[in-house]
Amino acid sequence: MAAELAALRAAVALGGVLDPADPAAGFVRDERGLLPSHPAAVLRPRSTEQVATAVALCARHGVPVVPFAGGTGLVGGAVPLGEASQLVLSVRALDRIRSVDAADFALTAEAGCVVADVQRTAEEAGLLFPLRLASEGSCRIGGVVATNAGGSNVLRYGMTRDLVLGLEAVLPDGRIWHGLRSLRKDNSGYDLKQLLIGSEGTLGVVTAATLRLFPRPGHRAVALLALPGLAPLAGLLALAREVCEDRLTALELFGRTGLELVLRHLTGHRDPFARPHPQYLLVEASAGRDGAALTAQLEHFLAEAIERGWALDAVPALDRPQAQALWGLREALPEAEKRAGGAVKHDVGVPLGALGAFVAAAAERLARRYPAAVLNAFGHVGDGNVHLNVLVPAGTDRAALSALVYELVQEYAGTISAEHGIGVLKREALTQVRSPLELALLRAVKDALDPHGIMNPGKLLAAAPPAQDGGSTPK
Amino acid sequence: MAAELAALRAAVALGGVLDPADPAAGFVRDERGLLPSHPAAVLRPRSTEQVATAVALCARHGVPVVPFAGGTGLVGGAVPLGEASQLVLSVRALDRIRSVDAADFALTAEAGCVVADVQRTAEEAGLLFPLRLASEGSCRIGGVVATNAGGSNVLRYGMTRDLVLGLEAVLPDGRIWHGLRSLRKDNSGYDLKQLLIGSEGTLGVVTAATLRLFPRPGHRAVALLALPGLAPLAGLLALAREVCEDRLTALELFGRTGLELVLRHLTGHRDPFARPHPQYLLVEASAGRDGAALTAQLEHFLAEAIERGWALDAVPALDRPQAQALWGLREALPEAEKRAGGAVKHDVGVPLGALGAFVAAAAERLARRYPAAVLNAFGHVGDGNVHLNVLVPAGTDRAALSALVYELVQEYAGTISAEHGIGVLKREALTQVRSPLELALLRAVKDALDPHGIMNPGKLLAAAPPAQDGGSTPK
Repeated sequence: MAAELAALRAAVALGGVLDPADPAAGFVRDERGLLPSHPAAVLRPRSTEQVATAVALCARHGVPVVPFAGGTGLVGGAVPLGEASQLVLSVRALDRIRSVDAADFALTAEAGCVVADVQRTAEEAGLLFPLRLASEGSCRIGGVVATNAGGSNVLRYGMTRDLVLGLEAVLPDGRIWHGLRSLRKDNSGYDLKQLLIGSEGTLGVVTAATLRLFPRPGHRAVALLALPGLAPLAGLLALAREVCEDRLTALELFGRTGLELVLRHLTGHRDPFARPHPQYLLVEASAGRDGAALTAQLEHFLAEAIERGWALDAVPALDRPQAQALWGLREALPEAEKRAGGAVKHDVGVPLGALGAFVAAAAERLARRYPAAVLNAFGHVGDGNVHLNVLVPAGTDRAALSALVYELVQEYAGTISAEHGIGVLKREALTQVRSPLELALLRAVKDALDPHGIMNPGKLLAAAPPAQDGGSTPK
Repeated sequence: MAAELAALRAAVALGGVLDPADPAAGFVRDERGLLPSHPAAVLRPRSTEQVATAVALCARHGVPVVPFAGGTGLVGGAVPLGEASQLVLSVRALDRIRSVDAADFALTAEAGCVVADVQRTAEEAGLLFPLRLASEGSCRIGGVVATNAGGSNVLRYGMTRDLVLGLEAVLPDGRIWHGLRSLRKDNSGYDLKQLLIGSEGTLGVVTAATLRLFPRPGHRAVALLALPGLAPLAGLLALAREVCEDRLTALELFGRTGLELVLRHLTGHRDPFARPHPQYLLVEASAGRDGAALTAQLEHFLAEAIERGWALDAVPALDRPQAQALWGLREALPEAEKRAGGAVKHDVGVPLGALGAFVAAAAERLARRYPAAVLNAFGHVGDGNVHLNVLVPAGTDRAALSALVYELVQEYAGTISAEHGIGVLKREALTQVRSPLELALLRAVKDALDPHGIMNPGKLLAAAPPAQDGGSTPK
């Protein structure tokens, strides 16, 4: 590896090939603290061309490359594996917003741009970049594209996949793919960008993306519903879509357990209801112009939900601080959980109509097998995505518990990763839930684009045995 | 080929391996009448398993397979090439709607289901399947998935790609991929369905799809605007999105030329305005519940468009027949064009903000080079997609004219196929507009999934030379 690093240092004006011991390389670590991080070195290219030069060199020398952006991933997808055997390639210095075109409802940002900065730039152009994530203040465009990030606005605006119009990327042999288009419709050949979106750095390094923008909603209406249980969930979703139509932006579930964790472990929050309730549903709708009509729509939804017995009570936010307080309860859940000692996390998804039954079944099965465990289920129920997190006593076999959850997910035709991806933490689980044919197809795609296994080996799929020919550049 | 056909006849209970001379095989022809169609035979499997058996046999014998559904494509993607050297595999007998799940907002239909039947089934469940195509009465699910069909509702609901939640398909070696999921969010590995959507039958045979349904809009508001020219288009699009928000369903442009073609060649239509205008913009918005508010929104848009001078006049439809009459003008354009002797068609797209300038530039450049040509530009301008059709005198060099159009498309960072695909008619043009790297990537994907070039060879990409080993089944 020393010779290869010397070659990189000699060939690339990278503004630093950092030694892993360099304090400036300290940002390369696992967000969740579960995985060690021992990169061979940390590269900080300042342009797409420098990324290309570096990757071409790595391909020639057979050095594995781990693309790194915000480092906020939850499955270890950007953490180097092994002992100083993988090179981390940070795209953080590619942080330019290259263009904003309001007439085209599009913006082109480099991979190192922080999502919150992209949101702000869109807002300054009078538009909206709708990706809304807990980590939006630190996650970056390269990362959200590579992981097909979801978040709280998926119900209305889709996943990152739906927000990407074009990509620029460096392929595993160092060639630059210039695919920065802003077209809404383009059926001229296979849609190549779909390969890279959600590929978790295993098929190339995303260096820039052209992103869809939307009209900016001037009005938001937010409310919290108290539910008697999980049974009314499917009905509430259908009702909310019918009454609020496409203005429905978010539907977020959390339970009494979650609310109590927040109230117990964090300050500045209060229970908006006079008495405890089993479940809570946060609803948000937004509109551009007619705030009064929007409020009427949301009130109509609340009234109908209560009339049908699907909600026991409801608190509409009367102003922006109240709306923020309600959202604050939902957004505080991960931190409260961490303060309570952490949880075994499961980012799972099931068909929309089955979510209530699925969470109820999970609660029952967990209670039977792990009587001391506490289920904290919350998430984006408008998309069938629930974070099925379980607080367990020390010494619990976490792998066995997850296996139980994933078995139930399979029974409900669901997914073991709705939005966080596979990375290294779910790589083994993936081999359990996907058919041999699907695993072979994943491998076929990987081998077609990265025949020498240079890009983020060991993520999403097991690393292939090293190439026999020493990793020469494919044709 | 005779031996292979005998093997197929012997092995597969297909309810008919039709001789091409059989009148029952007459449906296999080119929709546009531009291409001859000489299949080696026409297979009509009745189940996914029969498709798999047939494809496995074809793979073993190296017989090329051309998947065929509705046969309404406009680029020859489903037409067999050569003289009785390719087998047509019709999926028309796979015509069952397997399930409708209103709580899951999803429906699973086999590849042979006609789109209009899927629309009707969704409607009976109180929901909407939003794909809206001129050919919806005859095109089929397998075809719209394989071509990533677009149509008139893309602005609000997206392309077919955005409507597909899961797929079942037979791969080029005859294996069945069971990918019928209904999940909104699933980041468990590369999104394999993205490969097959829009692949034009070159990577496998789609046998069924799970499709997204939406709340059914109970109210529609439609109007026709008369424009002074193309300059206000980008402004009108932004204004319509701002005022009508996500209720905006369609924005369709056509010119005076198109309207006159309709009035001259077809009966039952009339000019809704008292005087002629250079351009017309059809706008539709729809809502589930509050029809009065919807009408007010559309009227607000019309008033503001006229106040800004972007529209000279506007006709709102006051009832359903009037709305249908306005849509009728737009929908009659292809037929009127055909009656006028046909046109050189270009299904192109450019960035949203550039559409007006692009059409104006095309008109100017065509007038200079082809003074006798008549430009009939119309289409889905809310998506940047315009059908740039040119009526030309006999003897015009159609290829040279198209080359001129495609050159202009390149200058505007556009696409030579926004929604119709590549098929065989645009295969050569694709090699002109895509970079060598992109063409290599398309080929890499094709070779990874169809290493023996069995699936629809000669479509989208040139046929690869025949495999040396006789086409054995890949691992």
